[in-house]
Amino acid sequence: MDSLDEMLLEVKDTSELMIDLAYSSLLYSNRDIAEEVFSMEETVDEMVTQIQNEAINKVLEDRNVPKALAIVRLSTALEEISDAAMMIADVVLRELQPHPVIQLSLRESEVIITTAQVQEESILVNRTLGDVKLATQSGMWVIAIKRDRRYIYGPDEFTTIAAGDVLFARGPKDGEAYFKDIASGAVRV
Amino acid sequence: MDSLDEMLLEVKDTSELMIDLAYSSLLYSNRDIAEEVFSMEETVDEMVTQIQNEAINKVLEDRNVPKALAIVRLSTALEEISDAAMMIADVVLRELQPHPVIQLSLRESEVIITTAQVQEESILVNRTLGDVKLATQSGMWVIAIKRDRRYIYGPDEFTTIAAGDVLFARGPKDGEAYFKDIASGAVRV
Repeated sequence: MDSLDEMLLEVKDTSELMIDLAYSSLLYSNRDIAEEVFSMEETVDEMVTQIQNEAINKVLEDRNVPKALAIVRLSTALEEISDAAMMIADVVLRELQPHPVIQLSLRESEVIITTAQVQEESILVNRTLGDVKLATQSGMWVIAIKRDRRYIYGPDEFTTIAAGDVLFARGPKDGEAYFKDIASGAVRV
Repeated sequence: MDSLDEMLLEVKDTSELMIDLAYSSLLYSNRDIAEEVFSMEETVDEMVTQIQNEAINKVLEDRNVPKALAIVRLSTALEEISDAAMMIADVVLRELQPHPVIQLSLRESEVIITTAQVQEESILVNRTLGDVKLATQSGMWVIAIKRDRRYIYGPDEFTTIAAGDVLFARGPKDGEAYFKDIASGAVRV
């Protein structure tokens, strides 16, 4: 895979996570997650601009106009998805009434998405997801990690957690408190 | 849940399936699935128009302006997602080069989404998904059923299959042939 394809995949993953997060922010009227969606949208915009620039520049080398067009159209669609996610999150930030939200949640009330930042004093620091068995203890699966401005999607048992990481986890509502406490360092078992 | 919420949920489910189908059409340059995405987009547009009409009409009864606004904004976002899915499918229909596609597929090549219409002579007719054990025999999970112009999302073991149903299934590439044969009636075990 060349770097263009890698960027496309990253934008695809980001836009999917954004939709998930946007619905979550809506279901739980969670402003933090809604704001995260807004910040991800900026990243997507920048990446899409870069992808489209590179795709069209590449035509000068490989004269492959249809490929460039396909990439431009695909990345535009991904940007639209990320814009739509932002519109969903915007409903939360404008504090429009959460009613339709709570009703939407009927179907998904068992599962939430939540985030927590890993503090220096957390036992998660410098350990792998496999080591800490977060999923076994709390039912919370880490679906993505934000490190500085980058995202690690679908981390696995070998992914090492660093202080400062923001973990995005999916799981039962009643696993959330433990998940947040273990990340903050408030709980050390 | 009132009918507005039900429609919103249906549009949400449809837009999600559309994104899945659009990527699938792209990964396998599958024009049938791409065309399905186009037809679903029309349904979404109609439903969103209806939702927005009802939401605003309802203000006359309940004077709940913020709720109406939230519904209008949310449904607009869902329409954008469905438009984006259409843009992705459009790459396939325009026969723009499948290259970026094949590369995108690297990550997901194990799993495909495919469709098949159930013919009168298929053993699936009038049986439930639980009865026929399609998943056990072919690895293909039915994720949605299109019956006339409506979709049944996340059908379960109790869902009965009718002649004429279009099944959308997700599973391993090598389960596809059996899945299509069983739906067409070519294979009866």
